[in-house]
Amino acid sequence: MNQVEFDFDVMAEKSLEKIYELLEEKKYFLARDEILKYNEADIAELFEDILMDRDAGDAVILFRLLPKDVAVVVFSYLPSDDQLTIIDCITDKETTYIINELDFDDKIDVLEELPANLVDKILEKTPKNERKLINTFLNYPDNCAGSLMTPDYISLQKNMTVGEALEYIKEYGIDAETLYTCYVKDQGRKLIGIVSLSTLVVENNDTRIMDIMHEDYVSINVYDDQEEVADDFKKYGFIAMPVVDKEGRIVGIITVDDVLDVMEEEATEDMERMAGVIDFENSDKDYLDISVWQHTLNRLPWLVILMLSYIITGGIINKFEGMLSDVICLVAYMPMLMGTGGNTGSQAATLIIRGLATDEVEPADFFKVIWKEFRVGLLIGLILSVLNFARICWWDGQGVAIAMTVCVAMLAIVVIAKMLGSMIPLLAKLCKIDPALVANPAISSISDMVSCITYFAMASLILGI
Amino acid sequence: MNQVEFDFDVMAEKSLEKIYELLEEKKYFLARDEILKYNEADIAELFEDILMDRDAGDAVILFRLLPKDVAVVVFSYLPSDDQLTIIDCITDKETTYIINELDFDDKIDVLEELPANLVDKILEKTPKNERKLINTFLNYPDNCAGSLMTPDYISLQKNMTVGEALEYIKEYGIDAETLYTCYVKDQGRKLIGIVSLSTLVVENNDTRIMDIMHEDYVSINVYDDQEEVADDFKKYGFIAMPVVDKEGRIVGIITVDDVLDVMEEEATEDMERMAGVIDFENSDKDYLDISVWQHTLNRLPWLVILMLSYIITGGIINKFEGMLSDVICLVAYMPMLMGTGGNTGSQAATLIIRGLATDEVEPADFFKVIWKEFRVGLLIGLILSVLNFARICWWDGQGVAIAMTVCVAMLAIVVIAKMLGSMIPLLAKLCKIDPALVANPAISSISDMVSCITYFAMASLILGI
Repeated sequence: MNQVEFDFDVMAEKSLEKIYELLEEKKYFLARDEILKYNEADIAELFEDILMDRDAGDAVILFRLLPKDVAVVVFSYLPSDDQLTIIDCITDKETTYIINELDFDDKIDVLEELPANLVDKILEKTPKNERKLINTFLNYPDNCAGSLMTPDYISLQKNMTVGEALEYIKEYGIDAETLYTCYVKDQGRKLIGIVSLSTLVVENNDTRIMDIMHEDYVSINVYDDQEEVADDFKKYGFIAMPVVDKEGRIVGIITVDDVLDVMEEEATEDMERMAGVIDFENSDKDYLDISVWQHTLNRLPWLVILMLSYIITGGIINKFEGMLSDVICLVAYMPMLMGTGGNTGSQAATLIIRGLATDEVEPADFFKVIWKEFRVGLLIGLILSVLNFARICWWDGQGVAIAMTVCVAMLAIVVIAKMLGSMIPLLAKLCKIDPALVANPAISSISDMVSCITYFAMASLILGI
Repeated sequence: MNQVEFDFDVMAEKSLEKIYELLEEKKYFLARDEILKYNEADIAELFEDILMDRDAGDAVILFRLLPKDVAVVVFSYLPSDDQLTIIDCITDKETTYIINELDFDDKIDVLEELPANLVDKILEKTPKNERKLINTFLNYPDNCAGSLMTPDYISLQKNMTVGEALEYIKEYGIDAETLYTCYVKDQGRKLIGIVSLSTLVVENNDTRIMDIMHEDYVSINVYDDQEEVADDFKKYGFIAMPVVDKEGRIVGIITVDDVLDVMEEEATEDMERMAGVIDFENSDKDYLDISVWQHTLNRLPWLVILMLSYIITGGIINKFEGMLSDVICLVAYMPMLMGTGGNTGSQAATLIIRGLATDEVEPADFFKVIWKEFRVGLLIGLILSVLNFARICWWDGQGVAIAMTVCVAMLAIVVIAKMLGSMIPLLAKLCKIDPALVANPAISSISDMVSCITYFAMASLILGI
């Protein structure tokens, strides 16, 4: 089964069909053999499909037939609602076994999702020391460094030799989340240096740890936001980073594989917020697992807030009803002007929001950004105006005055929208508000009003009405 | 200088001020000492600031004063235009030195950006074997696995013992990109297994590699898209993955730190595309480094295409000019209806586009998704309609007939927009078109037309005009 990945999707589909047939015929052991052809991460993916397509009972029977060590790893790869489905169907004894065997950080993730009475039952059977540690970890707020870390790391003494360190790792390393970075602590658990396994392996056995350890390591504060953690990993390119408390004592480490998930989550959150969707549950649930009601709640607030802004826009239009009745053809160009204002503003806003998120743009660049957007707006506005002038005169057969009105308004609207679109995220950032959360709705409502006013002002100026 | 990260931004600002003062007074060595207090990744960030704030000459003098080994690492962390600025100012000899000292994958990245004559000059001084390898790597298309990988990995023989393997690593490991995964090849360079350094370190010295290597490794094809590569890393949580050619021969490895950048790039690309910005240069340039002209080119196409759709919308409105002149107050509700249609459609589209990108949603879920969006649309449409009915009757003081017209249209528009918003990305995916590229513009133009037609149809039905 080399190169599983190469055509996993194709293979998986065939295997699933086969497994479903076997389950249908109640040949559970054969189904298990089929699924065991895969890597644990792939098995978890197959289980997700089985849980979605078929009765949970079938999936659980199959899960119970997996070798115990495989079952634990597969379980750790499953999304949390599938984990809960399985836990619901197996005995408490099996649950306790699986949870005790999980890596520490996975264990915390599962315990966070379980009902309190089940957590208590599991903790009762946990040794006192570990129980205390689990409780500390469970208390770190979601989305902070503490919720991502694991206490299973290798710690060395500065007086050890490389040879002794390697012996120590050989003996105690099996449970550590990573062996690749080892941490050197003083008596008071304060982190004094780090040394990588590659250094240990290529160094002479008699060298002392204190002579090869890096003292200029970079650490993460336990209450840092997970977004900052991801930024640090991106910046420094490390495999693992130590997490310290206020006193500089090491409390755990974060490994890069957990950061990949954080980066994906953060990007998803930003995209959703930019589209006016707020995840009030703060869940990592899949789209299809979120209820209709929750989807509605997540999307309604911005739509309702925008309603208010449409009352103002409507009011502006009402004020100019007289003008519009006189020259009714002006109405036909309103969607284009308002739409273009919104689109062009949100182009600018998206570039700036993303630039802020990836540190390409900083609030200090305010005037550079505005100046750039002003010029881009001018160019785009001119091009669109010329195109529209031609089409309104020739295609629509309107007079030059109408064409002038629309085109001058277009130019003004694009320039204003580009500048608004870049300014609003920067201002939000300065006010410590998430730009992704407020920028696009703010821009779309402000640009609608500005578009209307600009258009009607041009009309009364040029057409003299 | 422990915990550099903890308040890097604050420290960096102070240091920058100090460095600028020292540069002003031409105290270059003191400025160098100040900058050398930082980690190489941080130094690179400081150089970015210096290059932006001050004359390039100052930055280059400072760069030349860095210890050679530090200079190489700092150089590798710099964005490519800053690399080019520095190369422009230093001698060819210095350039050749730096480039030869870079890790292989960084070397390729730099060579790709350099002008051809300079690349030739550098390659002339490169040993023939490496030159050949560099040329092969330079030829892999951008954005494929080949462009991310490095050939510097540890390869072992299956007959080696663990002790021999560790000796081998000690001797030859220094140049490898990672020691943490070692690759076992047969005579024909075909990959037959992998073994991790952690296994080697905890195993007995006499064990043979063939007995502990994993043969069920997962590999990446050299022409796989970088997005697939990122997905694999996310799925399996590996630190490094082997890259193989069609014959299963290993040609390089990809390490997880390069994948972090890919994930960020891909998320940025998706967000920009969703906002109608297409990066035609396909560059990884920062927002501020892209010219006004290029910004304009990137944003213009969708705006122009949408112009065409506004011609149709305008035409629809023209057809109903008579109706609008009769009941001019209908115009005031047009922005709300069209705007809400667009917003609500893009909410749905964003959730589906992102769901497709993160594999939460698949095209096979088509009907499940549409059914969910239908219900969400119905709920949201009902709530917005009731709110609007109240405001139109009481606040605006319009008759019930007008209020009915607007509210029935609102309900229909929201439901249709939600279904369109979810359908279009799924259809794009089925047609193998990037959903992020086409969904939002398509939805905004179609929903505008649908909104107009629905509104006018309701008006003629309910108001009898």
